[in-house]
Amino acid sequence: MHYDIKDINLAKRGNLRIEWAANNMPVLQLLKRRFANQKPLKGLRIGCCLHVTTETAVLMQVLKSGGASPVLCASNPLSTQDDVAASLVRHLKIPVFAIKGEDTKTYYKHIKAVLTSKPDITMDDGADLVSTVHRALNNKNFNIIGGTEETTTGVIRLRALAKQGRLRYPVIAVNDAQTKHLFDNRYGTGQSTIDGIIRATNKLLAGSKVVVCGYGFCGKGVAMRARGMGAQVIVVEVSALRALEAVMDGYRLMRMSEAARLGDVFVTTTGNIGVIRKQHFILMKDGALVANAGHFNVEIDIPALREISRQKRRIRAFVDEYLLKAGRRIYLLGEGRLINLVSAEGHPAQVMDMSFANQALSVEYIVQNHSKLKPDVYEVPQFIDEDVARLKLESMGIQIDRLTPQQKRYLCSWQVGT
Amino acid sequence: MHYDIKDINLAKRGNLRIEWAANNMPVLQLLKRRFANQKPLKGLRIGCCLHVTTETAVLMQVLKSGGASPVLCASNPLSTQDDVAASLVRHLKIPVFAIKGEDTKTYYKHIKAVLTSKPDITMDDGADLVSTVHRALNNKNFNIIGGTEETTTGVIRLRALAKQGRLRYPVIAVNDAQTKHLFDNRYGTGQSTIDGIIRATNKLLAGSKVVVCGYGFCGKGVAMRARGMGAQVIVVEVSALRALEAVMDGYRLMRMSEAARLGDVFVTTTGNIGVIRKQHFILMKDGALVANAGHFNVEIDIPALREISRQKRRIRAFVDEYLLKAGRRIYLLGEGRLINLVSAEGHPAQVMDMSFANQALSVEYIVQNHSKLKPDVYEVPQFIDEDVARLKLESMGIQIDRLTPQQKRYLCSWQVGT
Amino acid sequence: MHYDIKDINLAKRGNLRIEWAANNMPVLQLLKRRFANQKPLKGLRIGCCLHVTTETAVLMQVLKSGGASPVLCASNPLSTQDDVAASLVRHLKIPVFAIKGEDTKTYYKHIKAVLTSKPDITMDDGADLVSTVHRALNNKNFNIIGGTEETTTGVIRLRALAKQGRLRYPVIAVNDAQTKHLFDNRYGTGQSTIDGIIRATNKLLAGSKVVVCGYGFCGKGVAMRARGMGAQVIVVEVSALRALEAVMDGYRLMRMSEAARLGDVFVTTTGNIGVIRKQHFILMKDGALVANAGHFNVEIDIPALREISRQKRRIRAFVDEYLLKAGRRIYLLGEGRLINLVSAEGHPAQVMDMSFANQALSVEYIVQNHSKLKPDVYEVPQFIDEDVARLKLESMGIQIDRLTPQQKRYLCSWQVGT
Amino acid sequence: MHYDIKDINLAKRGNLRIEWAANNMPVLQLLKRRFANQKPLKGLRIGCCLHVTTETAVLMQVLKSGGASPVLCASNPLSTQDDVAASLVRHLKIPVFAIKGEDTKTYYKHIKAVLTSKPDITMDDGADLVSTVHRALNNKNFNIIGGTEETTTGVIRLRALAKQGRLRYPVIAVNDAQTKHLFDNRYGTGQSTIDGIIRATNKLLAGSKVVVCGYGFCGKGVAMRARGMGAQVIVVEVSALRALEAVMDGYRLMRMSEAARLGDVFVTTTGNIGVIRKQHFILMKDGALVANAGHFNVEIDIPALREISRQKRRIRAFVDEYLLKAGRRIYLLGEGRLINLVSAEGHPAQVMDMSFANQALSVEYIVQNHSKLKPDVYEVPQFIDEDVARLKLESMGIQIDRLTPQQKRYLCSWQVGT
Repeated sequence: MHYDIKDINLAKRGNLRIEWAANNMPVLQLLKRRFANQKPLKGLRIGCCLHVTTETAVLMQVLKSGGASPVLCASNPLSTQDDVAASLVRHLKIPVFAIKGEDTKTYYKHIKAVLTSKPDITMDDGADLVSTVHRALNNKNFNIIGGTEETTTGVIRLRALAKQGRLRYPVIAVNDAQTKHLFDNRYGTGQSTIDGIIRATNKLLAGSKVVVCGYGFCGKGVAMRARGMGAQVIVVEVSALRALEAVMDGYRLMRMSEAARLGDVFVTTTGNIGVIRKQHFILMKDGALVANAGHFNVEIDIPALREISRQKRRIRAFVDEYLLKAGRRIYLLGEGRLINLVSAEGHPAQVMDMSFANQALSVEYIVQNHSKLKPDVYEVPQFIDEDVARLKLESMGIQIDRLTPQQKRYLCSWQVGT
Repeated sequence: MHYDIKDINLAKRGNLRIEWAANNMPVLQLLKRRFANQKPLKGLRIGCCLHVTTETAVLMQVLKSGGASPVLCASNPLSTQDDVAASLVRHLKIPVFAIKGEDTKTYYKHIKAVLTSKPDITMDDGADLVSTVHRALNNKNFNIIGGTEETTTGVIRLRALAKQGRLRYPVIAVNDAQTKHLFDNRYGTGQSTIDGIIRATNKLLAGSKVVVCGYGFCGKGVAMRARGMGAQVIVVEVSALRALEAVMDGYRLMRMSEAARLGDVFVTTTGNIGVIRKQHFILMKDGALVANAGHFNVEIDIPALREISRQKRRIRAFVDEYLLKAGRRIYLLGEGRLINLVSAEGHPAQVMDMSFANQALSVEYIVQNHSKLKPDVYEVPQFIDEDVARLKLESMGIQIDRLTPQQKRYLCSWQVGT
Repeated sequence: MHYDIKDINLAKRGNLRIEWAANNMPVLQLLKRRFANQKPLKGLRIGCCLHVTTETAVLMQVLKSGGASPVLCASNPLSTQDDVAASLVRHLKIPVFAIKGEDTKTYYKHIKAVLTSKPDITMDDGADLVSTVHRALNNKNFNIIGGTEETTTGVIRLRALAKQGRLRYPVIAVNDAQTKHLFDNRYGTGQSTIDGIIRATNKLLAGSKVVVCGYGFCGKGVAMRARGMGAQVIVVEVSALRALEAVMDGYRLMRMSEAARLGDVFVTTTGNIGVIRKQHFILMKDGALVANAGHFNVEIDIPALREISRQKRRIRAFVDEYLLKAGRRIYLLGEGRLINLVSAEGHPAQVMDMSFANQALSVEYIVQNHSKLKPDVYEVPQFIDEDVARLKLESMGIQIDRLTPQQKRYLCSWQVGT
Repeated sequence: MHYDIKDINLAKRGNLRIEWAANNMPVLQLLKRRFANQKPLKGLRIGCCLHVTTETAVLMQVLKSGGASPVLCASNPLSTQDDVAASLVRHLKIPVFAIKGEDTKTYYKHIKAVLTSKPDITMDDGADLVSTVHRALNNKNFNIIGGTEETTTGVIRLRALAKQGRLRYPVIAVNDAQTKHLFDNRYGTGQSTIDGIIRATNKLLAGSKVVVCGYGFCGKGVAMRARGMGAQVIVVEVSALRALEAVMDGYRLMRMSEAARLGDVFVTTTGNIGVIRKQHFILMKDGALVANAGHFNVEIDIPALREISRQKRRIRAFVDEYLLKAGRRIYLLGEGRLINLVSAEGHPAQVMDMSFANQALSVEYIVQNHSKLKPDVYEVPQFIDEDVARLKLESMGIQIDRLTPQQKRYLCSWQVGT
């Protein structure tokens, strides 16, 4: 078995930590049992480009128990947990290509290693795998029947690809499942981003000004949790609708050029590029912290920061001090990569439980329906979404009401009025 | 001019209060000026069935300045502000058919009075007008070119009608505009429901248990504000997805049969029927308050409450004490009608500003596009939604960022990855 | 029986509303039963200067059932509920001197009417009664054995009097009981101030900027509830300690001269004079609302506002529009008097339940201990405070833990360490 | 120079991290400059028993620049940051006796090493140093002129000692300074406890039930932040007053025997012993997490937990799994020691800035006033408290208002009334 990981001897610790995650993923445990009985993924090769974390490892167990053969590479050069990679190789016999801190060249070499396994299905987190497939494709040898995508950023890229008429196979936008983006993007990113910033800096958030760029679901989560820690939150947006929502939620809303002067901590969550730029850095206070919770490390314009600095040093793990030529200091966290994965552990298992249940069930859906699906970006079927929510509530011991027959009738009528 | 109102002499006070509302509706003021110049509604008869409040009066001013002739009846027998009705008749020369506290027979007589004016367009809040039209319709004399609907409940009824193939003209679901339901249903209903309950009872919410039935946008708003006043909030839901969201938002979630034993205050926000029933009343604590913030007074099963009671008396305005045969007392607020309209003043003008801007712009859209629209329920065009949000932010003196050219390009690409 | 009230025929409605309050004051109900058995206040004349509200009426019932003869005047010219005054006279046979909207001359005439009854004990809310006593006193005829004071403002005045060596009898600072100021000032003032502002204006607080002047317990309550309604809260303070606390609680903190430019709504809670002055009014935005939640109507400099205005009119009940010479409009709520009493109903019964339980028990304490008390300002004895808290929890059906014997020992030891 | 630390070679990293803390402690920087000029502590030997963290290192710099010679040992066996200890020895030439994970015997050996230096002043965090002094004392050789104490627990122990008439020198209760316990105990413990729990477990708090034992300032902080992360918070208390406050703050309040069945996470913050006991463990759900944020590791009865377990293993760093004989699993975090110091970094520098400014100024006060102070527990003089708050606000760039002359007069008068 080929693989490329840091150190196989880390496997034992990884295994314990995977057990810990599994304990917190009850929906996946239910699926694992069903998949083990029914083997719905029998013989399927699945190429996975995901953050190599304990939660992903539990998803790999589910896929494998369903009969599939997954091959895994990292979807981010800094987010790999080397002990988990080791345990996946040793205990689960899954080929893994991922080393924490790998350079960009190695990163893409690892993606190609996954493609070499000739997957039937791709499972992506940010669309780097599917992009590589589409760059590399020629007409021979192509047999991918479908794919799934985990993130907002990936879905944006896939839609761009589809719009150009170049998408070659159907992809299910797992990100757009309600049990994914309503929960993972909001509660998961919210908590883990705050966690990442505090671990990196040990800063007191109470009384500080936190600037959140973007008020989508990730931004909402970060803003909500920053406020929950006592910070004064300032939101920056480009959509009038979202901006208005932020205002009504009680946040201050302003342009980045104003916020730049005020913030103690800046967090980008937009999925876009160049959100914090040279023109903003030069306005910041001495000691400002800058972090990214969006997918790629392009939200903060790091080359511009370097250009206006006369010195850079690492003052704490994951904290780089840039001494501006103007004399002020700006602290860049986690090299501008996803701070919740770089200096914390990513989304807690409890939210990934839902996201990955959608992944597993979407793969099953592709297997059963791929002949009917044209190359396009698809939503997760609603019955999957509802199933996941129902199973999650059950696992928390929560019971909900059902509509009475009278209520069902009422919802279908138009006659009954005032 | 025909009209049927309480007392024309109340007009002066109504006029002052309408001025107060107008001050708080800057988007409508902007539209009014444009409409006065362009007269886009020239010659149009608009039949309106809306809550007769100061905010509605400001909308009437806008429609009128656009060249239309509106005729107005109440969409709820208890929500009419008689001074506003008087001012509309005296100062704006609009026929109004609405008297606070009118009985059901009068209520429908007033709706029919509006239809007698042979409207070109219907504007509804709960679909009582459109339902009456459809019950009454025969093939002669029919010339309605379109309609609008303000509420979730009305949209549900219209969709039922459309599904049965019986809807006769296109209706725009103003409720579904983001600048409507994201704001009006959440921030408007949230604040005004709490306001209505406190005005009716002067109860301290801090430390009390508030049970919110339904976690749609209205329920979210009520739950958020009840918590904001220091209450312990319990949510009851039938949708697993919404239930899970309530749990993640930190609320307790349980079945109504459990919540019934615990609540100090109950609020229904579902748009459904029989949400609080006999089986629940008999479990409630002595002194429990029960109120409705959903559209119709069917959410609380009042006949059932009456049936198990041995005495009923009015202990405060808008508070009826039901002494159960079992000896405990349950207090029904506002006779189970919309508490925010009955004992408070409905949504604040600032949110109605957006909702009604969507109304006015949707009417303009129907005038321009009705020949292309088949009988069906339509969403508010997105450009209207965005316009409303932009105008609102401007009126608050808030400026937002725009995408840079680089960012626009980035959002359309798929090549740039890790 | 002498009395001076608005209209004795309002008694019936007053009686019903007092019953409603009594239902919400379980601790006073318990005291009433005990007092009825033990008659600890037998033969005592109590001169009371309090807000004449339903809650005060319940306190009067308790005092009377303890054997006392209370005489009551208003502690604020605008807060009297005339129906309650009528019911107190008719049903409880208590002399009441209070008419809503009485002028200052009548107000003091009413205070003197209470003194004419030759009270043994004074019960004050703001120290107007005790001040009048001390202005009027001469050495003959003086037989007051003690007094109680309800508010921060009154306690400040009494301490000033005591410091000058001029206080003539012992007064218990009921305000300083934990079960009073931790609850009444924070939860009571918080909710009822927001209630008063919304009733007066029907403004949407979500998204608006609310400036709270003072971050004592009242200010904390108002800030907390304004935030709970979705407002952006700005705090103004003169104490560095409280200012820092506000910052750490996530609020913006600035000087009044800055806040004046930003606020949509201003609320004073300081107990001081001239908090919002001419220099601030001239900086305010068009449409700013100004309200007071502190004791006296001196916190807002109304004469200065009048001086810079060219026109004043009442646009809604409790809302006066001042048109500044500069063209902008400022809206003064409730004539600068306690907004929660003027346009709402004052503190909810549930918090007054605790405050007034302290009043009743403090009067009992004075009766038992006055021979030992010198003229000075005294704290409420701690056993009373604890009793009130315990009774309140019991009435809510809440049980708490007790220290184990091991824990009691541990708290008294110093030997057990790391 | 004698010292006992883990590894002197860690000094470089420690030094960088101390620089990071110093950047976040602006009040101490101001004091350091003044102390360097005035040398108020010249020749003073200070025996310090504190958590050996970066913030403590900054305090050491201040003491040293004031002319003192501090000697330092740990106040908790698990909280020492070994790199900081190394840097203090190498760069600041301060004798340090502290190794992370030292056993109890070594812990007390280190305390005795500090006493061997014959300190003039003791500086304590939990009173282990002062207790050891008092156990060891005989009448010869005693020359301690005063001490300071940082924590609630330490102050409780000192008061017990003073009550027995056995305290030998004056000690200032730094803990009771408002700029200490209002901030450090609430915002510091609040954030860092949540941080510690998340680092140890990576659990999602949103939607989980967090049981907080004790609603003093630490408990309030933990409850506030747990709610801020989306948890449903349950409070357990023994004081009726605090219990009532928790209820009014919107939390559920119940006895530990009920809470035990419901909680997902338990946190003790009482300063007492045996708060979570055998009778509670046996009721807990499978998977419950138990952590301590109070001073000593006696709040959770670990021996009782061990006794009812059939197996124990470490599943993650700082997480021990106890498999009960009954089959359920309970996870004890950080061996029941202060979770915010064990698995996180203790209070953020910004709050310690204020606490330690009180320490430094209290030592200066002792030097100047010790001849006037009898052996007793003293409050921090109010002028120190106010100074610290003022300096902190200044460092944040926040300006506050001052009382006008009119306002000062008003606060001293009693004549001005309604």
